[in-house]
Amino acid sequence: MAEDHDPEAWRAAQARKKRIVDERVARATEDRGVLVVNTGNGKGKSTAGFGTVARALGHGFRVGVVQFIKGSFSTGEEAFFRRFPEVDYHVMGEGFTWETQDRERDVAAAEAAWQRAEAMLADDTLQLVLLDELNIVLDKGYLELDRVLAVLQARPRMQSVVVTGRRAPDALIEAADTVSWMKMVKHAFRAGVKAQKGVEL
Amino acid sequence: MAEDHDPEAWRAAQARKKRIVDERVARATEDRGVLVVNTGNGKGKSTAGFGTVARALGHGFRVGVVQFIKGSFSTGEEAFFRRFPEVDYHVMGEGFTWETQDRERDVAAAEAAWQRAEAMLADDTLQLVLLDELNIVLDKGYLELDRVLAVLQARPRMQSVVVTGRRAPDALIEAADTVSWMKMVKHAFRAGVKAQKGVEL
Repeated sequence: MAEDHDPEAWRAAQARKKRIVDERVARATEDRGVLVVNTGNGKGKSTAGFGTVARALGHGFRVGVVQFIKGSFSTGEEAFFRRFPEVDYHVMGEGFTWETQDRERDVAAAEAAWQRAEAMLADDTLQLVLLDELNIVLDKGYLELDRVLAVLQARPRMQSVVVTGRRAPDALIEAADTVSWMKMVKHAFRAGVKAQKGVEL
Repeated sequence: MAEDHDPEAWRAAQARKKRIVDERVARATEDRGVLVVNTGNGKGKSTAGFGTVARALGHGFRVGVVQFIKGSFSTGEEAFFRRFPEVDYHVMGEGFTWETQDRERDVAAAEAAWQRAEAMLADDTLQLVLLDELNIVLDKGYLELDRVLAVLQARPRMQSVVVTGRRAPDALIEAADTVSWMKMVKHAFRAGVKAQKGVEL
């Protein structure tokens, strides 16, 4: 950056950035829970969801978690967050759908998991609810989108929700406050490196 | 999906997916720590980094964390992860650079933080090291990229590292095993909603 060589210009640029941030903070006055969607084909969607759970626990909040796809790729976070009495943790019964290969059973499991999610989305003592991999279940048509959107919209005002999974439906993106698209640039696993415990597992 | 209406086709598609995944797992035989980079302008880069810390703790691992930018946006995760004796947590001394507006002081703080990171990157009892917002420090030229890359490459073989922050340098992306690009699709804060504790703070 050219500013690096001119302390005056650098300070002016920093002051300008600070002004922009300060103005945005001043304008952001609406105080309510937010609906966050992490989608895309890259790593980090669920991981960021679980990072948000950690952040909420740092504030002493109560958190609900429903994992809609129970795969072999979530052993670490489940072991970790189940330790905390302030986390209500539910895992959908079955494995990845291409492991079970039984659509009827998947639909029933999705329905049971959604019942748990609905109860959490009506509980105003939970400040955060993580609906991990819900997007996949919606994309596969295991749950009706309109029903899910109605429950999300009727949740307690101060409750925030994070929904993860690739292929988030357009209407969910529309309804969300914050949406991040995680794009895979490269992936160790595809380059022949074993999935590492504590990173991917 | 058309397959939804034809159970046979659906099962065949699922079996095909399972085969692809199984083959990839069989090919991924290299067992070593990975270098992960979370970059882009969207939310979730640091949050996914902290989610990875949670996952590692779930496996009983020891973790090092250096936060290179100490802003007001990381109070929750710091409060949370400092609780754990198995986490070595270091925060760089100063605030956001556009708050301090003193480049000399920022460079000195970056150097001090990097010293802590170097010690972690030589410690094979740490299975994971999170270098949060290191990309920003590199982008601003507060630390020399070649020096950082050399230390990353010389780290213990089974140690994984997650580097976060927007504008990851090209050479770091080149050196990484897994790279996710977080793209902002929309953001509650820009729409006038106050940053929510336990989600963004």
